[in-house]
Amino acid sequence: LFVSKNGVKQAMPLELQQKHQSNSFTPISEKHLSAFRSMLGVTHVLTENEQLIDYGHDWTEDLLFMPEVVLKPNSTQEVSQVMAYCHAQLIAVTPCGGRTGLSGGMLPVYGGVMLSLERMNRIIDIDTKSLQITVEPGVITQTIHEAVEAHGLMYPPDPSSKGSCMIGGNVAENAGGARAVKYGITREYVLALEVVLANGDVIHTGAKVLKNSTGYNLTHLIVGSEGTLGVVTQIVLKLVPKPALEYTLLVPFAKAVDACKAVSAVFQHGIVPSAIEFIEKDALDFGQQYLGMNTYDTTGIEAHLLINLDGNHEQVLVEQSEALAELFEHMGGGEMLFASSQAEKEALWKLRRCLGEAVKGTTIYKEEDTVVPRAELANLLSYIKQLGREHNFYSVCYGHAGDGNLHINIIKQNMSETEWKEMLPKAIEKLFQYVVQLGGTLSGEHGIGYVQQRYMPIAFSSVELELMRNIKGVFDPKGILNPGKILNPSLT
Amino acid sequence: LFVSKNGVKQAMPLELQQKHQSNSFTPISEKHLSAFRSMLGVTHVLTENEQLIDYGHDWTEDLLFMPEVVLKPNSTQEVSQVMAYCHAQLIAVTPCGGRTGLSGGMLPVYGGVMLSLERMNRIIDIDTKSLQITVEPGVITQTIHEAVEAHGLMYPPDPSSKGSCMIGGNVAENAGGARAVKYGITREYVLALEVVLANGDVIHTGAKVLKNSTGYNLTHLIVGSEGTLGVVTQIVLKLVPKPALEYTLLVPFAKAVDACKAVSAVFQHGIVPSAIEFIEKDALDFGQQYLGMNTYDTTGIEAHLLINLDGNHEQVLVEQSEALAELFEHMGGGEMLFASSQAEKEALWKLRRCLGEAVKGTTIYKEEDTVVPRAELANLLSYIKQLGREHNFYSVCYGHAGDGNLHINIIKQNMSETEWKEMLPKAIEKLFQYVVQLGGTLSGEHGIGYVQQRYMPIAFSSVELELMRNIKGVFDPKGILNPGKILNPSLT
Repeated sequence: LFVSKNGVKQAMPLELQQKHQSNSFTPISEKHLSAFRSMLGVTHVLTENEQLIDYGHDWTEDLLFMPEVVLKPNSTQEVSQVMAYCHAQLIAVTPCGGRTGLSGGMLPVYGGVMLSLERMNRIIDIDTKSLQITVEPGVITQTIHEAVEAHGLMYPPDPSSKGSCMIGGNVAENAGGARAVKYGITREYVLALEVVLANGDVIHTGAKVLKNSTGYNLTHLIVGSEGTLGVVTQIVLKLVPKPALEYTLLVPFAKAVDACKAVSAVFQHGIVPSAIEFIEKDALDFGQQYLGMNTYDTTGIEAHLLINLDGNHEQVLVEQSEALAELFEHMGGGEMLFASSQAEKEALWKLRRCLGEAVKGTTIYKEEDTVVPRAELANLLSYIKQLGREHNFYSVCYGHAGDGNLHINIIKQNMSETEWKEMLPKAIEKLFQYVVQLGGTLSGEHGIGYVQQRYMPIAFSSVELELMRNIKGVFDPKGILNPGKILNPSLT
Repeated sequence: LFVSKNGVKQAMPLELQQKHQSNSFTPISEKHLSAFRSMLGVTHVLTENEQLIDYGHDWTEDLLFMPEVVLKPNSTQEVSQVMAYCHAQLIAVTPCGGRTGLSGGMLPVYGGVMLSLERMNRIIDIDTKSLQITVEPGVITQTIHEAVEAHGLMYPPDPSSKGSCMIGGNVAENAGGARAVKYGITREYVLALEVVLANGDVIHTGAKVLKNSTGYNLTHLIVGSEGTLGVVTQIVLKLVPKPALEYTLLVPFAKAVDACKAVSAVFQHGIVPSAIEFIEKDALDFGQQYLGMNTYDTTGIEAHLLINLDGNHEQVLVEQSEALAELFEHMGGGEMLFASSQAEKEALWKLRRCLGEAVKGTTIYKEEDTVVPRAELANLLSYIKQLGREHNFYSVCYGHAGDGNLHINIIKQNMSETEWKEMLPKAIEKLFQYVVQLGGTLSGEHGIGYVQQRYMPIAFSSVELELMRNIKGVFDPKGILNPGKILNPSLT
């Protein structure tokens, strides 16, 4: 078990080693590998060091935990066989999809088996009459978008990583995206699941229906449980008719706080955009630099709002655009840019979607996925800046403002390693305490995973955490499934 | 413990007595009553026989189970005190709201305490900036509608019983209603809950946010759990801007199956109505009779579709209405009635909403809340008629067709009591087997409650049922909270 940074292997720091030593999982031996090879075929059992490094990280900071083996099952039955075997042998199993997560949900922190669902990437059925799609977990989210759009339909959730993330991971983390503000998050589209439990049992939750009051809602318990309660092997998703038209607008604000305030005003005026994103000046600058462009002048501009409106009637979108232009003018906004071509729209959204990578590529940072009631955005933004002055850090913010979901990037800059490590948890604790005080919570769409566990007691009482632990115990009494996630505040 | 029909008390039939005898709850004594009186005040502890009868039934068939005492707490703290006491004393507690349920979810089948939340009926906050409302469970759903509409906002879920049902009951049963087809069910509006657990502990789930990936989703586990996992004492609901315009259309179909087929065609044409209800001829006749009206001639008409369209642009609604008229003409529909006045719209919807009571008032019946993929409605309708021919019963159907949610009323008519009792479970079992085969499930919006428990094994495997039982055990290890519901197939 190693931790490595930037591909350079190094022994896990002693402190972390001690924390992880408490586990009693079985190390994987040649005997186990033979068993896996006969279940899945030799080519689907990876043990080369480079392969293990590949599967040892996602997009979360620079963390890397080496799995002992990577398994690539191709069917529910194979997943079930692997789970039954690992359950009997007490081997840790961490499921993974596209490995684009931002909370380390798929990091194999106890080594063991990395169960990659990538080969289970079939679209099983598109029901164009009842507007549903049935997929395996390894389908890339954008592939679903394209497949259903060909039928005039839409699968709304669109995480920024949509070109690489897999639907199974979206379900595990309850992913959101820009369109969530109008259409809702992944949870709201999952109608039914096939799930392999820790012991290999296969269950089916939900049904192919739009409303369901039949027993406890296991579907919604699995969604967002980050692979700790079961391995999702099939997903039925709701679809909606695809709107024919989409407008994209960009509005500069001299004051970032005014941009935040304008967001809730939009909804108060009865307009529900299909996206309304907040982008701080430096985020836009980082993004332009990353893409090698210089299109948008941010001089004197603290923030932009990037807005999509969709619908089927040109006249309605024109009226809404005009109403927004007028509203923003009264709220401190500058001249509204109307993306007149498809290319311009796409360029703007490419810029928005690259912000995470752009910030990551520029500097060492820590990202928080805060979410608050929509109207508290301005307060949240003011607070993070104040906190930065107190703790001497610089921050760059952007996010799905219509949902009150602000991605806060705390940047290391020239801070010493010691100073950074000491400052960070204190500052984040204060930030989350404030967020919870505003009625918000720790994560809007990235999950708790590995890196946010220590902050869980800020959002939940010991009774609430105990309930969650007991639910975990119901699904996975031996604790072999994605161990070391969500509910281990002392681990990180 | 008595079962009574139509207010006439009678001893519980021996067969039922035996089934219920297995419980070991503590009978309520004078000592317990004194304790309750000192917690809540004497006037909020009801023990008169007439009062107990009042609280011993909901709108489910003619079932009545007498509670031993009715308690009316006025605060979370009082609920917590009652629960802690009953937990220590092993007294059964059944929470209730407006007592309008259709699956017997609030029937105190083991007697004990009936915990009525009716005094906790305060609207705590309407947040017009973030579009949220915080309420206690005893608020009538329609009161919420009116309170938020005064601010130009809308709380979409609208069960037919909206004038009498309480929001706490809506949360417990995950209630739907006509607008669910466009706006979603109760679940999709619940952001956060305050819940008193079986042992009196108070927990808070969720947050005042539109997206949340923070730990296991306890909120969505509680919603729809029919008061078996905890007593909901506060609810934060999402609101949306209220559309300015609403059109109401009524379309007759000579063939009921054509009406069913037309429903999925509407969505395939990119139109999402804010309601699309299917009403079989006899349901409309019962309803008109019940209201003493004779407005709609159903001669030669097997079914009607009642449709609402909403939005902010007159021109869009006109175009959609025209598109629907054309579509229905091609699919076997007759001349579309356009409700031209507010009074006409309200009359039509009053007629729709009275159907449950109208059928109930006319005859002895059993109602099933089936739900299937939208495009399978026609198959479901054909099947129920075929089943009727096989088993010699007559049925009347109506429901939220846009959601694939068909309320099937199996009517007793002149069938003998013996024949009825023998036929019914067999026919319902076949019906549910077919529904599940179509991808559907047992209940769309009424819940399993008391009366549908025996059919649960049709929808769930023993592993799935065991998971649900274990989850119940996590929340309520002594099993005192709403016992005899959802998970006791052998009880009914």
